[in-house]
Amino acid sequence: MEMNLTLTTLLDYIGTFAFAISGVRLAAAKNFDLFGAYVVGFVTAVGGGTLRDMMLGVRPFWTTNEAYLIITAIALLFVIIFRKHVVKLDNTFYFFDAIGLGVFTVVGLERSLMADQSMWVSIIMGCITGAAGGMLRDIFINEVPLIFRKDIYAVACVIGGLVYYCCTLLDAPQALPAILAAVTVIVVRLLALKYGISLPSLKGENEDVEPWRPRRRDKRGR
Amino acid sequence: MEMNLTLTTLLDYIGTFAFAISGVRLAAAKNFDLFGAYVVGFVTAVGGGTLRDMMLGVRPFWTTNEAYLIITAIALLFVIIFRKHVVKLDNTFYFFDAIGLGVFTVVGLERSLMADQSMWVSIIMGCITGAAGGMLRDIFINEVPLIFRKDIYAVACVIGGLVYYCCTLLDAPQALPAILAAVTVIVVRLLALKYGISLPSLKGENEDVEPWRPRRRDKRGR
Amino acid sequence: MEMNLTLTTLLDYIGTFAFAISGVRLAAAKNFDLFGAYVVGFVTAVGGGTLRDMMLGVRPFWTTNEAYLIITAIALLFVIIFRKHVVKLDNTFYFFDAIGLGVFTVVGLERSLMADQSMWVSIIMGCITGAAGGMLRDIFINEVPLIFRKDIYAVACVIGGLVYYCCTLLDAPQALPAILAAVTVIVVRLLALKYGISLPSLKGENEDVEPWRPRRRDKRGR
Repeated sequence: MEMNLTLTTLLDYIGTFAFAISGVRLAAAKNFDLFGAYVVGFVTAVGGGTLRDMMLGVRPFWTTNEAYLIITAIALLFVIIFRKHVVKLDNTFYFFDAIGLGVFTVVGLERSLMADQSMWVSIIMGCITGAAGGMLRDIFINEVPLIFRKDIYAVACVIGGLVYYCCTLLDAPQALPAILAAVTVIVVRLLALKYGISLPSLKGENEDVEPWRPRRRDKRGR
Repeated sequence: MEMNLTLTTLLDYIGTFAFAISGVRLAAAKNFDLFGAYVVGFVTAVGGGTLRDMMLGVRPFWTTNEAYLIITAIALLFVIIFRKHVVKLDNTFYFFDAIGLGVFTVVGLERSLMADQSMWVSIIMGCITGAAGGMLRDIFINEVPLIFRKDIYAVACVIGGLVYYCCTLLDAPQALPAILAAVTVIVVRLLALKYGISLPSLKGENEDVEPWRPRRRDKRGR
Repeated sequence: MEMNLTLTTLLDYIGTFAFAISGVRLAAAKNFDLFGAYVVGFVTAVGGGTLRDMMLGVRPFWTTNEAYLIITAIALLFVIIFRKHVVKLDNTFYFFDAIGLGVFTVVGLERSLMADQSMWVSIIMGCITGAAGGMLRDIFINEVPLIFRKDIYAVACVIGGLVYYCCTLLDAPQALPAILAAVTVIVVRLLALKYGISLPSLKGENEDVEPWRPRRRDKRGR
């Protein structure tokens, strides 16, 4: 196992750990067994990047680095051992989780650019890298994905992507676009959490919306 | 943005709009936030074609054309602005939705043929292109996919695919297979809706079916 | 349709049949229509291998062999015709299902090795090939995937993969690693079923775990 610990790698691993913890804990809340909890933790951590790589037509990133598998195992052990204390660490996790979101977004965006995708596609790929793992996690535990209903999450990725784009327009030197974009994602995410900012929800039409079914004029009651 | 408005493109965009509308409305019924509703609308519209492209090993079709992203945004705005009137337009939407189903099916089938797949695989790919978006939408909003339980939907795609196949067997000229197949899908779909035709459902065995679990002989009650 | 009936192929088809039966029966329990039941059966049977092939960047295996489509159709017919007697055959199905699990795991592992993946990635790919179809089935019928909560299932695939790995380390001749690995999966699976062995479940923290949401200190009741 190659342990090339640059700062990006370290932050990437911290984010992986935080994402895996969130998957393991939600799986535990549903009484999944140890293996199930491990799988959900792993999918939460690497699912977004895997979906991106499948769309870009490259092999999933985790297949060339055992670290993600090992970090997920550590996260599982961590939850088992410190079960009762994990809750108290929540605010730490939110911070780590935000770091992961920022780093994943930028890594995803840059991999997509390297694969010759356009900027707007890359912003979407960054967003998928950051946010799709949590979405897959919620599908696995059979819940409506939280990112669609609460807080600002994926939107932070989009804003970070736009910051990246503006930096490149302004010919920002070297690593600056990446750093500014990641910091933006993290700050937006943490501010949204701190002040409880969320997007307005779209109110339904107060009746069952069934697609593909002509509405009867004479329907009464139900 | 290239706006090459041939008739196929126009019909493709109309179908995209109708599919996105159905995603946004169902997301609204679940109180998704604006971003969540947008994502569900987008996935409903492009999910089937994306799954097809991932299987064929080509890049998702929407990455080369911003139109799908923009049309989904328009669909979201449309639902927000005309919320109360959207219901009255239902019969229009069913018509548009059927157009989308027909066009998506044929586009998917032909892309698969162009990727050197056999005819029967291409018929399946056409079916996935037309029907999988709605299936993904239902998974995202945590409902049992409607296409598995109601009406004739994906079956219309299969019938259209068979018509395409027969046309090629008969050496039909040029665009005729595509046109006949799309029209078949649309007509079958609209007739099924109008007359409430659906496939028989498979009745369960009236007990919990748990896979992989040997049945105890002495089990009583529950 | 090429009917190259080697022993591996025969066992592969038996496994496909058993997997498809489990999909069709669970779809029937949810009152899916005939087409929906067919799709769920097909996805249960080929979903794991398809996911593997999409990750490996090759075309889904079933696109080069109609057999899987036809076997699923036979499974559907079988359930329709023998509906009342299917239950009595349960113990036969568990046996077939275990055979499928063993064969799928080894086939997946070897295809991954042939695609130049490392051994540990191939073990994961074998596990996905064997177990992901059942997971997708449960997502389609909107249930929490059983493999995450009950019995030893995917873990049997992992153990089989490790046996394969040990055999190659010991320079086992020819087909021996494949045979030993498949037999291991089958035996582990059947023993786990017979003796009701399962992994311990991870107990939740006895409260709603909502990710990404800072915990309020003063929260009371709910």
